[in-house]
Amino acid sequence: MDITLNELKTRLMEINDLNAAESVLSWDQNTYMPPGGAAARGRQLATLSRLAHEKFTHSEIGGLLNDLRDYEESQPYDSYEASLIRITRRDYERAVKVPSAFVALLTEHASTTFQVWTEARPANDFAKVRPFLEKTLELSRELSDFFPGYEHIADPLIDFADYGMKASTVTKIFSELRRELVPIVHAITAQEPADDTSLHQHFPEPLQWAFGMEVVRLFGYDTNRGRQDKSPHPFTTSFSVGDVRITTRIHENNLSEALFGTMHEAGHAMYEQGIDPAFEGTPLANGTSSGVHESQSRLWENLVGRSRGFLEHFYPQLKKVFPAQLGNVSLEKFYRAINKVSPSLIRVEADEVTYNLHVLLRFDFELQMLEGTLEVRDLPDAWRERFKADLGIAPSDDRNGVLQDIHWYFAQIGGMFQGYTLGNIMGAQFFEAALRAHPEIPDEISKGKFDTLHEFLRENIYRHGSVYTAEELVKRVTGNPLTIAPYIRYLRKKYGEIYELE
Amino acid sequence: MDITLNELKTRLMEINDLNAAESVLSWDQNTYMPPGGAAARGRQLATLSRLAHEKFTHSEIGGLLNDLRDYEESQPYDSYEASLIRITRRDYERAVKVPSAFVALLTEHASTTFQVWTEARPANDFAKVRPFLEKTLELSRELSDFFPGYEHIADPLIDFADYGMKASTVTKIFSELRRELVPIVHAITAQEPADDTSLHQHFPEPLQWAFGMEVVRLFGYDTNRGRQDKSPHPFTTSFSVGDVRITTRIHENNLSEALFGTMHEAGHAMYEQGIDPAFEGTPLANGTSSGVHESQSRLWENLVGRSRGFLEHFYPQLKKVFPAQLGNVSLEKFYRAINKVSPSLIRVEADEVTYNLHVLLRFDFELQMLEGTLEVRDLPDAWRERFKADLGIAPSDDRNGVLQDIHWYFAQIGGMFQGYTLGNIMGAQFFEAALRAHPEIPDEISKGKFDTLHEFLRENIYRHGSVYTAEELVKRVTGNPLTIAPYIRYLRKKYGEIYELE
Repeated sequence: MDITLNELKTRLMEINDLNAAESVLSWDQNTYMPPGGAAARGRQLATLSRLAHEKFTHSEIGGLLNDLRDYEESQPYDSYEASLIRITRRDYERAVKVPSAFVALLTEHASTTFQVWTEARPANDFAKVRPFLEKTLELSRELSDFFPGYEHIADPLIDFADYGMKASTVTKIFSELRRELVPIVHAITAQEPADDTSLHQHFPEPLQWAFGMEVVRLFGYDTNRGRQDKSPHPFTTSFSVGDVRITTRIHENNLSEALFGTMHEAGHAMYEQGIDPAFEGTPLANGTSSGVHESQSRLWENLVGRSRGFLEHFYPQLKKVFPAQLGNVSLEKFYRAINKVSPSLIRVEADEVTYNLHVLLRFDFELQMLEGTLEVRDLPDAWRERFKADLGIAPSDDRNGVLQDIHWYFAQIGGMFQGYTLGNIMGAQFFEAALRAHPEIPDEISKGKFDTLHEFLRENIYRHGSVYTAEELVKRVTGNPLTIAPYIRYLRKKYGEIYELE
Repeated sequence: MDITLNELKTRLMEINDLNAAESVLSWDQNTYMPPGGAAARGRQLATLSRLAHEKFTHSEIGGLLNDLRDYEESQPYDSYEASLIRITRRDYERAVKVPSAFVALLTEHASTTFQVWTEARPANDFAKVRPFLEKTLELSRELSDFFPGYEHIADPLIDFADYGMKASTVTKIFSELRRELVPIVHAITAQEPADDTSLHQHFPEPLQWAFGMEVVRLFGYDTNRGRQDKSPHPFTTSFSVGDVRITTRIHENNLSEALFGTMHEAGHAMYEQGIDPAFEGTPLANGTSSGVHESQSRLWENLVGRSRGFLEHFYPQLKKVFPAQLGNVSLEKFYRAINKVSPSLIRVEADEVTYNLHVLLRFDFELQMLEGTLEVRDLPDAWRERFKADLGIAPSDDRNGVLQDIHWYFAQIGGMFQGYTLGNIMGAQFFEAALRAHPEIPDEISKGKFDTLHEFLRENIYRHGSVYTAEELVKRVTGNPLTIAPYIRYLRKKYGEIYELE
C-alpha cells in the first residue's frame, strides 16, 4: 500500500478510536450509567467529540488527501484504496467547511434545547421550547449556508444523512409515493380495523426477551460480536466491526413493541456486522446512508418479521412460550393483529402503511420552515391540519403532535426524516431483487431459515460499507434506479389480502 | 482564581476526560463486552492512553507549572490551588522522565505478557511465561533508572503507588509486622481450625446480590452515584465523583466471597465518592496512595464487616434470607466461620491474619529480583521454600504459586504489593482514631448504623483526595506516624477471643 495512504490510515484510526470511545460512553449513558454520572459524562462526550473533530479537520489530513490524488486515480473506483481516499475526502471537505466555533455553538444549543424539550414534552408546553426551536431553525439555515451553491436550502442538510439526495429528488419520489399511498390508507381505514387485543395481554419480560433474541440470532445477528441491553429508546451502536450492540425496551402489556423493535435494531446491526473487516477503523466501516441503513432495519422487521411465512415457522413456537395468552389465537388472527393498519398519532408506533404519512409531513415541514414559508409558531396548528387531512385524526395536544420526536430538539431542522421513508422504499426494492436472485427465500423464511437472504444482503450491501453511495448501491443491487414500484407492489399484495383494496 | 491556573485546569480536565473514557472502556471490557470486541478495544484503549500521556507531558503543561511557582507559594499548602499545582507538578515531573517510546514499549510488552500468562496459568506452565517475565524484570529496572539517585532500585516503583515510601521504610515496618505476626499465626494454626462448612452450602446468586447491596448501601455507598455489575475479577473504577462503580463475582457455593468482596470494593468506592466535588476532573480527585486506598477497603470489609457487632445486627437478617442454610448455625459459629484462620495458597482467598504473609513474600521477592539476588528462573522454588517456612504448606504447582497474581504479568516487578499490607496497617490505625474520637461507633455498628464512622472517614480522609500524602494523612488523622501497634492490638484482641494466644 502507498506510504502516504498508510499515514492517512494511521490518523483515521486514531480519530476512529476517539469516535468509538464516544459511542461507548454514549451507550453506557443510555443503558447503565447512574444518575450522578450525567454531568461529567456530558463533558467527557464533548471533549472526545471536539478532539476527534480537531484531528479530522487538521490541515495535515487535507495535505495527505491532496498528495493522494494521483494514487487515487490510479486505483479502480471501488477498490479499498480509492474508496478510502474518496470517502475520507468527502467527509473532510464537509467537515472543514463548518468552523469549529459554529460546531461548538450548535452542539451546546442542541444540548440546552434537548434539556428544555425533556421538560416541555411531558408538560405539553410547546411555548416553552419554541424560542429554542426558533434558534435551532436559524442555526440550521446558517449551517446550510456554509455550503453555498445549493438548489434548495435543505439540500446540504439532507446530503449529510443521505449523500447525493436533494430536496427536489426526495420531494419528487415522496409525491409519487403519496399519490399511491393515500388511496390505500383511505381504502383500509374505511373498513373495520383488525382486532389486536391479543397483543395487549400480559407477556412477562424475560420470555419476550428470550424469544426476540432467538429470532434475531436466527436472522444472523452474531452475539459473539454484539449484545442486547435495555434503554429508554432503542438504538444500534457500533464500536467496531466485532462489537455492534442493540438495545430494546419491553412493555409487558405489549407483545409487538419489543419483538419487532429487536428485529428492527438487529437489521441495523447486521449491516454493521457485515462490513468487510478490512475496513475496520476507517470511514468506510459505516453504513452508507440513513436511507440504506433504514432499509435494512425495515426489511427484517416488516418484510420478513411481519410476513405470513415467518409466522408459519415461529408462531407455533411463540404459542408454546405464551400458551395462556395465545392458545386460542389463530395464526391468521395474529397475522392480522401485527399488521393492523389504523391512523395513529405517534410515528414510532405507526403501522407499515400509515407510517410514511408521518414522515412525509415532517419532511415537508422541514422544507417549509427552512424556506421561511412556515413559522415555528405556526407549527402546532399546521401539524393538526395536515394530520386531519392525511389521517383523518389530529392530536388534541402538542405532546402527541409536534413535540413527539427528539430530532428537531437535539440536532437541526432539515435532513432528519427523509431516511425513514427512503428506507421503506429501498428495503422493498432490495428485497424484490433478493427474491429475483433467490426465489427460494420465502420458502426458507417459512422454515425459519434466513441464510440465503442474509448472505445476499451481506454480499451485495453489508460488506461494502460506505464504498458505494445509496444511489450506486440501489443500481448495482437491483439493476434500477430508486423506484417506489416494488414498495407499492409489496403493500398492495400484502394488504390486498388482508383488506379489500380498490 | 489565577488565570494561569485556570488554563492549567482546562488542560487537566481534557486529560481527565480521556482517562475517564479509558476507564469506561476498560469497565465495559470487564463486564459486558462481547468476545468479538476484544481486538478493537485493545487498540482504542491504547489510543486513549497515548493521547492522554502526550497531552499531559506536553511542554506547555511544564510551562504553566513554572509560571505558577510564585502563585503556589502565595497559597496555603493544603489549599485547593496550591495542592492542585503541587500534585500536578509531582505527576508531571514523574511522567516526563519516562520517554514516550519506553512507555509504549512497556505497555506493549505488558499486553503480550498478559496474553501469555492467561494461557500459562491454567496450563501450569511457568516456563512458557518465564522469558517474558525476565524481560519484564529488565524493563522494570530500566524504568527505575529513569529516576536516578534512588537508595534502592525498587524505590521509584514503590513511589508510583505509595508516594513517599521507600524500600527501606517499608522493609522496616514489614519486619516489625512479621516479628509480631508469625507467632500469632503459629499459635492459631496449632489449634483446631474453625468449622466453616456453613459458608459452603448453596446460596442462590440473586439473594446474595441483594443482601450485599443492602449492606453497602447502609455503609454509605451511594447507588445514585454508582452501581455494581459482575466481572471475572472484582474491581472499583471511578469515571467522576458522581459515578464510581464496583464489580463482584458470585459463587453459589460460597457465601463469604461475594459478600465481603462487595464490602471491600464499596470501601474503595466510598473513598472516591467522598472526594470534594470541587476536585472533579483534576489529579486531586483520586485516592492518595494504594496503601490508603486499601486501608479503606479493608476497614469496611474486615474491621466492620467481620466484626461480632456487625453480625449482631445483620446475622438475624441473613438467617431470614437463608433460613434453610443458616437456621441452625449460631451467630458465634458463623462469626468463627467468617474469621477462620488457616494457611492457604491463594492470596485473595487468605484470611485476615495470614494474608500479610502472602504480601510480605511477594514484596521481598520483588526487591530481591530487582537487586539481582533472585533470578526469575529460581522464583518457583523460592516461592515454595518461603511458603513452607512461613505457612507450613507449599503449592504443589506454579498455578497456585508464582503464577497466581496478575500483577507481575501485566505491569512491572516492583511496587505492586506493599499497598495491600500497608492498607491493613493503616486501616487499623485509622479505625482506632475513629473510635477514640467517637467511642459510640461499635455500638452504632451493632445497631446497623454507620453514619458516624462514614462521616469521620469522609471528613478526615475521603474529601481530601490527593491533597495530603499518605504520611501526612496518617499523622493528621491519628496524631501519630504510621505504626503497626493498632493493627497488632486489633488482631490480638479479636483473635485472642476466638483462639488461645500466647
